[in-house]
Amino acid sequence: MDLHILDHRLRVTSISKNGLVNYTHPLIKLIFLRNRTRCKFFSLTETPENYTVVLDEEGFKELPPSSEHLQVEGSIWRPLNVASNGNASSSSQAVGVTKIAKSVIAPLAQQHVSVFMLSTYQTDFILVREKDLSVVVSTLEEEFNIFKEVEGEYMSVGCKDFTNGLQKNGKEAIQPTVHPVLIPQNQFCVMSLDPDTLPSIATTLIDVLFYSNSPKEDSESSAGQDLDCIKFFSFSLIDGYVSLVMDTEAQRRFPADLLFTSSSGELWRMVRIGGQPLGFDECGIVAQISQPLADGDISAYYISTFSFDHALVPEEDIVSVTDMLHHQRKEPAAT
Amino acid sequence: MDLHILDHRLRVTSISKNGLVNYTHPLIKLIFLRNRTRCKFFSLTETPENYTVVLDEEGFKELPPSSEHLQVEGSIWRPLNVASNGNASSSSQAVGVTKIAKSVIAPLAQQHVSVFMLSTYQTDFILVREKDLSVVVSTLEEEFNIFKEVEGEYMSVGCKDFTNGLQKNGKEAIQPTVHPVLIPQNQFCVMSLDPDTLPSIATTLIDVLFYSNSPKEDSESSAGQDLDCIKFFSFSLIDGYVSLVMDTEAQRRFPADLLFTSSSGELWRMVRIGGQPLGFDECGIVAQISQPLADGDISAYYISTFSFDHALVPEEDIVSVTDMLHHQRKEPAAT
Repeated sequence: MDLHILDHRLRVTSISKNGLVNYTHPLIKLIFLRNRTRCKFFSLTETPENYTVVLDEEGFKELPPSSEHLQVEGSIWRPLNVASNGNASSSSQAVGVTKIAKSVIAPLAQQHVSVFMLSTYQTDFILVREKDLSVVVSTLEEEFNIFKEVEGEYMSVGCKDFTNGLQKNGKEAIQPTVHPVLIPQNQFCVMSLDPDTLPSIATTLIDVLFYSNSPKEDSESSAGQDLDCIKFFSFSLIDGYVSLVMDTEAQRRFPADLLFTSSSGELWRMVRIGGQPLGFDECGIVAQISQPLADGDISAYYISTFSFDHALVPEEDIVSVTDMLHHQRKEPAAT
Repeated sequence: MDLHILDHRLRVTSISKNGLVNYTHPLIKLIFLRNRTRCKFFSLTETPENYTVVLDEEGFKELPPSSEHLQVEGSIWRPLNVASNGNASSSSQAVGVTKIAKSVIAPLAQQHVSVFMLSTYQTDFILVREKDLSVVVSTLEEEFNIFKEVEGEYMSVGCKDFTNGLQKNGKEAIQPTVHPVLIPQNQFCVMSLDPDTLPSIATTLIDVLFYSNSPKEDSESSAGQDLDCIKFFSFSLIDGYVSLVMDTEAQRRFPADLLFTSSSGELWRMVRIGGQPLGFDECGIVAQISQPLADGDISAYYISTFSFDHALVPEEDIVSVTDMLHHQRKEPAAT
């Protein structure tokens, strides 16, 4: 299989709920006015806590300089993705992060490489810190042909191609924290649309993204775990492809004929990982969820945000996933 | 003829060019998300100097509290309009402000009532200060049946209906300043569209309104009189009706099938009045332009902004209007 290290140099940022009004101007430009910006990688995810914005350096320049409302993770992140060139040897029918759980996620966790996952309708981006690229390459080059994107061309690389050399991260077998999970009741869809029809949904999308919080709503309480449903909406525009993740309530606000989903038209349920904000340094969080999903051959999308991680699994699998996670939390994981 | 005093209580404000980014969130709400706001009277006009925003109290509440970027004229303004009930006695074919020059504009100027004009595709609003209403009514009640809108109903009124009684403004015959005029080369259209199709032009309208100033553009110099063309774009959404005034260059960016203009499809040329910002207290500025237009039976739209006034006259009349204004500026007006 081929692993691509894409050319985008990404920043992971968070805009506070109250601060969004100050970022409406640049965000609308990044979402709708492709001709006015050189940004090629843009993702915006609303959660009850904040808005996570992942964007390349051209996009980052559009944001007003640091303010009390913007948090920026300090690193440059690089997106990897796995190109499924023909039928791979895997017999799995599952899609999404499940497919790469054993080949990418688990080995990187073992090497203590932090990953930030961003599943979209089109593909699953595995974001790693640029400084970790040499470890990533040395870890994965046995399993993958690794190509680095340079100005649109893909060049084969090995770990020797990274100037900072082989800096293996610490390898002590730290038992990872088992984080609490929240399983809200919403049903989610993972959708796309022709980017040329984006103007047709502009006012609805603007309404959902920028005006869905009535000022009187207590956003703190809606983050509480006792609520049945969770606010979660994700939009991405990456290399010209649009991906949308929303619950069925939000979906009903969009015209049915423009958004499309995979032919199976599946609905997904969410597992939110983390009782406290997870931070960016702990490794193995994605692995903790994706390995049992891979064992059960259960498809999953996975979206990391500034505070929490979110796995989406098929509606019909939520009971077995719940059982599995319950089991994992009762018994100490056998290493 | 009937004169209506509409129920809207309006504020006249100005947002600086640099400050627009901070007002994008409320302005987009006011323009596109009618279900989220109780504002019924909204007008936004971009000129080289600033953005003039006229809006009712519900709309004004949406704007962030005062900042260095927002100027607010201190008064409450009330819109009047003349209802053309059947064929009036006037033999004039002209439309717009010309039709009301002698019956409304001139008498108010004589009574030293300041007016702020806002012509739209649908009608011409004559804004007067609320405190001047009794003078307005007493001045115009001979010529008009005057009705005041109260919760959607029109009630006949006389000047006795205004609590502040008859406060005639000073009546000294002040010779009004003859202001310099600028006649830019742009051709303008006055257009409308079905408000239900507003979402279809959302991204274009957002682009034109909020992103047309490249940050490198020197907005000071573009206000200079030596430029051939002027930046001028006006959008209004009043009682559910949309009106747009734009030059032909901006018009080309919109889909041709959604915007409509009057059947004659006329193009208009602009006369900008004022070498220095006019302020809000001088009376007779509209009269100075509209009276000669009425004498010549030349149609005109008229749009006041925070700094300058703008008359639009038919393309084919611009030579005679130019001559007329030149003449007016050479010879002291005979009173």
